[in-house]
Amino acid sequence: MSNFTAADGRHIYETDRSHVFHSWSAQDKVTPLPVSHGEGATFYDYDGNAYLDFSSQLVNLNLGHQHPRLVKSIQDQAAKLATIQPAFANDARSELARLLTEAAPGNLSHVFFTNGGADANEHAVRMARLHTGRKKIMSAYRSYHGATATAISLTGDPRRWPNDPGDASVLHFFGPYAYRSPFWSETPEQESERALAHLENQIILEGAGTISAIIIETVVGTNGILVPPPGYLPGVRALCDKYGILYIADEVMAGFGRTGTMFAIENFGVEPDLITFAKGVNSGYVPLGGIIISPEIVDTFREKAYPGGLTYSGHPLACAVGVETFAVFAEEKILERTQDLGQRVVRPRLEAMKEKHDCVGEVRGLGLFWGIELVRDEETREPLVPFNPSPEENQPMLEFAAACRRSGLWPFTHFNRVHVAPPLIISEEDLNRGLDIIDAALDELDAYATPTLQAASISS
Amino acid sequence: MSNFTAADGRHIYETDRSHVFHSWSAQDKVTPLPVSHGEGATFYDYDGNAYLDFSSQLVNLNLGHQHPRLVKSIQDQAAKLATIQPAFANDARSELARLLTEAAPGNLSHVFFTNGGADANEHAVRMARLHTGRKKIMSAYRSYHGATATAISLTGDPRRWPNDPGDASVLHFFGPYAYRSPFWSETPEQESERALAHLENQIILEGAGTISAIIIETVVGTNGILVPPPGYLPGVRALCDKYGILYIADEVMAGFGRTGTMFAIENFGVEPDLITFAKGVNSGYVPLGGIIISPEIVDTFREKAYPGGLTYSGHPLACAVGVETFAVFAEEKILERTQDLGQRVVRPRLEAMKEKHDCVGEVRGLGLFWGIELVRDEETREPLVPFNPSPEENQPMLEFAAACRRSGLWPFTHFNRVHVAPPLIISEEDLNRGLDIIDAALDELDAYATPTLQAASISS
Repeated sequence: MSNFTAADGRHIYETDRSHVFHSWSAQDKVTPLPVSHGEGATFYDYDGNAYLDFSSQLVNLNLGHQHPRLVKSIQDQAAKLATIQPAFANDARSELARLLTEAAPGNLSHVFFTNGGADANEHAVRMARLHTGRKKIMSAYRSYHGATATAISLTGDPRRWPNDPGDASVLHFFGPYAYRSPFWSETPEQESERALAHLENQIILEGAGTISAIIIETVVGTNGILVPPPGYLPGVRALCDKYGILYIADEVMAGFGRTGTMFAIENFGVEPDLITFAKGVNSGYVPLGGIIISPEIVDTFREKAYPGGLTYSGHPLACAVGVETFAVFAEEKILERTQDLGQRVVRPRLEAMKEKHDCVGEVRGLGLFWGIELVRDEETREPLVPFNPSPEENQPMLEFAAACRRSGLWPFTHFNRVHVAPPLIISEEDLNRGLDIIDAALDELDAYATPTLQAASISS
Repeated sequence: MSNFTAADGRHIYETDRSHVFHSWSAQDKVTPLPVSHGEGATFYDYDGNAYLDFSSQLVNLNLGHQHPRLVKSIQDQAAKLATIQPAFANDARSELARLLTEAAPGNLSHVFFTNGGADANEHAVRMARLHTGRKKIMSAYRSYHGATATAISLTGDPRRWPNDPGDASVLHFFGPYAYRSPFWSETPEQESERALAHLENQIILEGAGTISAIIIETVVGTNGILVPPPGYLPGVRALCDKYGILYIADEVMAGFGRTGTMFAIENFGVEPDLITFAKGVNSGYVPLGGIIISPEIVDTFREKAYPGGLTYSGHPLACAVGVETFAVFAEEKILERTQDLGQRVVRPRLEAMKEKHDCVGEVRGLGLFWGIELVRDEETREPLVPFNPSPEENQPMLEFAAACRRSGLWPFTHFNRVHVAPPLIISEEDLNRGLDIIDAALDELDAYATPTLQAASISS
């Protein structure tokens, strides 16, 4: 790719710094790397450096960079019909809706398309409120649901704080987190039981009849790759049924094969009333999000108008890539390979890293969606860097990320965690190479951690 | 295009009705027309019918259907790099940001990209609140700003009602509307003066120091093609300066040549602090929106993080079409032809319709963005159908729209108005043909109106 030059990269960087305002950032502190191109699990900068992508661009490109079939589906749909407004019927739009409802668990029947995950959650909340006639929504601490007004209010992480007070009808509850239990539990089973008791207690004290829905990331994403313990999500479903509350599964990050099933919720045998999605539905090649809706909720809006919409709802170009995504999943056996690589390669390698490194407290995940939680002490579980660290406090993680990048890996780090979320099409060789780089970079972080008892006993 | 069959259309329709949930609709009452393809100012259904598009698909496709250069820009960018996350630098993203800041009035310097108009307004409000340290936002009645939580609260039309109460920090004021003055004024100049006095009065009574921003559609779109009277927008700017309030210009519908200038605000000599955009920036070929930001507001977020973002911010595929849009505007002299067709063709023809038809109360507009306000009586100005009509009350407008469609025109109607908003690339011949169809369809509506004094004086 000799047509990319370092001078081009510098020009793009300068133009960016002069005119582009960046998400979630202090504008004088960002130094955005100009990216020239990408292929599969790798992307490249203008200096010719290759980076193995272990973040999938915010856990978005499930089918990797520049998948030839997805690229072609864009080109073909662009030639056919780039866009048409939502009030018309369009083949790509209706076919993707059909495929999504077919793939979704239970009897979910209709799809409302949005531009991304945030507005999917906004509209799901609106549907829940109007369907139930109740206003309040419950969402979990340690969650992310988007950045528009209600979506950021749903969010249970520090990104919400500067936006508070927001939607006053949102309440937060504690979800399960066995490694750092908010319920003083000692086993995953106990964590599940107690989390459900806590949730029911809060429902009762808030007034069950005032709560329209509970929204949960099926596997909590950026806030920790928190896989719910056995029985938790079915228990939430049962509480919802008991109290007439809707269950909204946020699958924006966990959906579309990330956990080894099309929807993450399939791992837990739960049928939500609404599923919100984005990202992996078309690997973000064209902005797209949406909601898969139960027939009961659709019924509410059969005679009465649904009071929400958007110009780009069901965008044909975006939907065409979604339709092709289903074909690629089938042909390339994406779910099977994700399950296989997760269980056969990632799990044992991360468990070995936990054994080897003093700084690794826990590893957890499903499919190609894993978290490595770093600690200063495996006994006390003191995080390697604190919750919501300052740049100074975050220095060890910044050094870790820089070390990975020097070795050709682009990692995903968040607070005291390293996430492993490569494109699902990654080769076994690249997956192992990336894990080698993480393993080596963790060596440096071991310096921050107390040697384990095992090491201590060897030295005694 | 013989490869489109009526049977295909029926299949698409059935699939849509089984699985697609539609914006702003009672789901059992929609009968979405399957659209097969489009070209320029025309689109086609599967039965081979052609429709001249006088709505530009929700005033979105400013460069029309399937513009060859925009289609090619999608195909080329898809081949190069479909997407990359917002933290990186990308050539299409930085170049579009540069072009937008260069084209914008005043010294606006940076662009934050979103997925559409709603989230552009959401983020603009967030920036305004954090920059000023104030929470309240003022927006106008008879406005539309989007359907996410804060955007729908900003909205000043009935689409907000089922979503109330929403963002409690939004206040509504009356904007100018000379034809139906809320200020008992008799001339546009008086309307402007009184609207400003009203606005200042409300600012003072709400507490100027509590108000972060005023958001205004530069030319009110769906709610009436309300062109502000002379001096109004500069007066709002002066009030903002006097009280330390930010001016947000919503140019989602009016921007990108629709009024004959790149940004509609250029018609009024005002420099906003924030401009929100979407739609025409790339004719909606790929979902895109954003905010053009003043250096002062950027400065607020230089050392302190901006607490908002989204996965698809600055989407390369979307931005590439935006870059190409600027090239097409220059090469095809879009602004010049829009001004010319608006002044030389549309204005005189609509004025002639006002003379001719008892049912036409007023015509108004700029560029290729016009409204025809229909009345039962030109003296009393009683609307032909009431504000927010029921389906029964709306029957005359439904009949009008059906008559247009039978003659091969797809109109844009809203309450008691017909809007004229074809793609800016429409030929003069098609423009006249479309106006002919509207003219003929208005003949039927004259039956609902009292004959004018002129007609009465002729008969006496």
